[in-house]
Amino acid sequence: MTLENAIAELYALQKKLAAYDHAEALIYYDGVTAAPRETADNRGAALSVLSEVVYKLTTGEETVSLLEFLDEHKQELDEKQQRMVYLMLKDIREMQKIPMDEYIAYGELLVKADDVWHRAKEASDFEMFRPYLEQIFETQKRFAKYIAPEMDPYDNRLSEYEEGLNKKTLDEFFSKVRSGIVPLLKKISEVPQVDDSIRFGNFPADRQEKFSYELMKIIGLDLGHVGLSTTEHPFTTSFGSHHDVRITTHYHEDDFVSSMYSVIHEGGHALYDTGSADDLAYTVLDGGTSMSIHESQSRFYENIIGRSRAFCNYIFPKVCEFFPKEMQGKTAEQLYIAVNKAEPSLIRTEADELTYSLHVMIRYELEKRVMAGELEVKDLPAEWNKLYKEYLGVDVPDDKHGLLQDSHWSGGLIGYFPSYALGNAYGAQFLSKMKKTVDVDKCIESGDFEPVNAWNRENIWKHGSLYTPAQLLERVLGEPFNADYYIEYLTEKVKDVYKIEV
Amino acid sequence: MTLENAIAELYALQKKLAAYDHAEALIYYDGVTAAPRETADNRGAALSVLSEVVYKLTTGEETVSLLEFLDEHKQELDEKQQRMVYLMLKDIREMQKIPMDEYIAYGELLVKADDVWHRAKEASDFEMFRPYLEQIFETQKRFAKYIAPEMDPYDNRLSEYEEGLNKKTLDEFFSKVRSGIVPLLKKISEVPQVDDSIRFGNFPADRQEKFSYELMKIIGLDLGHVGLSTTEHPFTTSFGSHHDVRITTHYHEDDFVSSMYSVIHEGGHALYDTGSADDLAYTVLDGGTSMSIHESQSRFYENIIGRSRAFCNYIFPKVCEFFPKEMQGKTAEQLYIAVNKAEPSLIRTEADELTYSLHVMIRYELEKRVMAGELEVKDLPAEWNKLYKEYLGVDVPDDKHGLLQDSHWSGGLIGYFPSYALGNAYGAQFLSKMKKTVDVDKCIESGDFEPVNAWNRENIWKHGSLYTPAQLLERVLGEPFNADYYIEYLTEKVKDVYKIEV
Repeated sequence: MTLENAIAELYALQKKLAAYDHAEALIYYDGVTAAPRETADNRGAALSVLSEVVYKLTTGEETVSLLEFLDEHKQELDEKQQRMVYLMLKDIREMQKIPMDEYIAYGELLVKADDVWHRAKEASDFEMFRPYLEQIFETQKRFAKYIAPEMDPYDNRLSEYEEGLNKKTLDEFFSKVRSGIVPLLKKISEVPQVDDSIRFGNFPADRQEKFSYELMKIIGLDLGHVGLSTTEHPFTTSFGSHHDVRITTHYHEDDFVSSMYSVIHEGGHALYDTGSADDLAYTVLDGGTSMSIHESQSRFYENIIGRSRAFCNYIFPKVCEFFPKEMQGKTAEQLYIAVNKAEPSLIRTEADELTYSLHVMIRYELEKRVMAGELEVKDLPAEWNKLYKEYLGVDVPDDKHGLLQDSHWSGGLIGYFPSYALGNAYGAQFLSKMKKTVDVDKCIESGDFEPVNAWNRENIWKHGSLYTPAQLLERVLGEPFNADYYIEYLTEKVKDVYKIEV
Repeated sequence: MTLENAIAELYALQKKLAAYDHAEALIYYDGVTAAPRETADNRGAALSVLSEVVYKLTTGEETVSLLEFLDEHKQELDEKQQRMVYLMLKDIREMQKIPMDEYIAYGELLVKADDVWHRAKEASDFEMFRPYLEQIFETQKRFAKYIAPEMDPYDNRLSEYEEGLNKKTLDEFFSKVRSGIVPLLKKISEVPQVDDSIRFGNFPADRQEKFSYELMKIIGLDLGHVGLSTTEHPFTTSFGSHHDVRITTHYHEDDFVSSMYSVIHEGGHALYDTGSADDLAYTVLDGGTSMSIHESQSRFYENIIGRSRAFCNYIFPKVCEFFPKEMQGKTAEQLYIAVNKAEPSLIRTEADELTYSLHVMIRYELEKRVMAGELEVKDLPAEWNKLYKEYLGVDVPDDKHGLLQDSHWSGGLIGYFPSYALGNAYGAQFLSKMKKTVDVDKCIESGDFEPVNAWNRENIWKHGSLYTPAQLLERVLGEPFNADYYIEYLTEKVKDVYKIEV
């Protein structure tokens, strides 16, 4: 095999994998958008075939010898090719450690678990879902031990979503979060709550949908390559490459703010994905480098930009165009105050910017303890409810509003939640850096997203997965990650919205 | 290889092919339903990978030796397995007879022809499309000779879509169609045209969509396994097996009847598909046995049931529920008359029940003569226009409304059109047989579709592709195919709607 041939084969293999990725992601997307209710098993049948092929393509002898050959010649590869080989070999070495039959069975388990979780949530019946969640946690523990027998299983899961992340880093991070946010919540509880009535009224879904497309255009998404659908839970996915990205939202007809910020959040993910350099398409470097960097972008657009006074000033006249009757007599300042109302609540996805990371912290605590064998799945609901009382001061009335609210665990995403909180913190540190060269508020107030997007594109998006999260942070920030920016950002926001001294 | 192993491999291979079929059909479906506008190339990248895998899976050495081994042991296979092996080998043996380079060149020709046809239709310029159509007809003649040197080339093409169908059968059939329908049209032209104004008005798409789901339920579709979307052109597809079927429609807000009958037509296809016996799922026997039997079901529900007085009486109160304002002062009888208005026209897909088969007959005549070398492609437009004048009495103003209207020829589907007309005639003969045991009108008038569906399910649907169309007809009817039923059915309809003596 010549090096030239091997490199050509490397790209051909990735193009093949991208085609399967396209098919699998689309089957999933279809399942939550257009598919009839009782077709999950049929999707499972196709996915089990495809995932077996992908498994063989990814870990088969031919692939392994190709990658090992390239790895031996890595000095002759360019930076991107080196990273491709590293990432693909890493996955293979991990997958080789998981028995094929267990890998396939797990795929089938997740398809069923997703279906059962939907029904269990509807019925608010944790017992229905419990056996599946037990199997998911057990499998995750087993897989972690197969992959890294020397490593703590939860550390291994965490590093799946963020290379190098571990409990030590997160324990420190969440300790800052707790000591920064809990006192702010206490201060707020001592002054009158702000008025958020502007967000409530009658907002027909079809008008909200039109407004969603307008928002997508405003934040700079290319609608020729980014689609919008409605699902129970908003998410972002891409099909095969960054040339076809889909975001989803969920409309509440009594509250336009909910979907508005979902669209901006998912739009942030889509900006990151579609911003990959074109030569990364159909390679493993296409799209974002980690979940937390992804969340840093989605929450940057949703919160740091979207809930700024500058953006509220810009967007309010548009809101009036779409919902003239409901906005009569209202002001941009009222919108700004309403979307920044901070109040302990039950549902993570509806949580405000201030309390959001506390919801994440609770999930982190619980996952950590289940993975360590210190907590049993059957005891999760009681522990969940206890921590919500302790950190947020709220009583959880039932499992639907408790631990059945999120789809992550039913999808096998153990170790994923912390990314959300880290992303918040990264975003605040990015903002501080961005402001050194971009007049962010001025741009946003005039609806000109391009300077902000250009900064993100140049510093973050175009690199795809070329750098690890740590490398990227280092390149962009020129200093280590520091959660103080995040706490400071939140403190300033609270002072401005609640007119209090902290 | 033991026989037992070979049989297990046969099922595993079909399950694999079903998964790829699921992926490919879904990628196509996504392209015409939810996909952003500029993502076609991205779908092309995935499809080119997947179709190459399917080609290798279908015709690869391993598959061929498996099927040949099973074919040698066919006496030991059950009826279904015999049929699977026969159908899969038939495709391979046909493909093996076509030189690979010609097969690839033809694929490339069709891609170009489709593009040119779109532009030629838009410009109403047959000359632009002519060279491509000439090559398509020439290739079809050549391929027919490769596949069956002893057979008439057009007979070979016809039997591609309907095993055993030939010109002799169709000449007799269309002769009956012509002598049955043309005089009816003449009679109609001598009396005042009926009033179809009830169908026109203001029918918002979202109301029509709700009505569509109601119609799907009424005709007995299982909404747990059959989905509905909107597309430019209505169609039915299934993903991997009959457990997930999708129909599409297109709403015209000024005419509720158009989508109503699209939904019932595609619903008929979906009833047939979902009616396959469960043990046929993930095999090549899943779904309908031929295009004409498929059309016999779709047009049975659309026309024979859907345009009956019984159905109009049943459905009219529902129409009133969905469109109370537009239906004020209207009657079920007016609906019945409106949906049975017969009038010669230019466009096949918009033709009424009476004239539809004449459109098909013209295409059949022309294909037959070109395939026999009796007519040159360059003379097709003049002949097309002449036959439209002769049979339908209409003047074709341009090629866009003439022979450029259908996509079939540009897609290489020579011999496909007759299925549409045969389907109509089969349906009428099925009805006559069904009426011996089911009081069809009484069932439909009360909205009870189950006895009708049970008859179709037991006689037609559950067998999937186990029998050839001819075998199926013989089993169901106990007598040969006879177009007299169809002509008699149409004659009765015309007498009833136009109050004339025939």
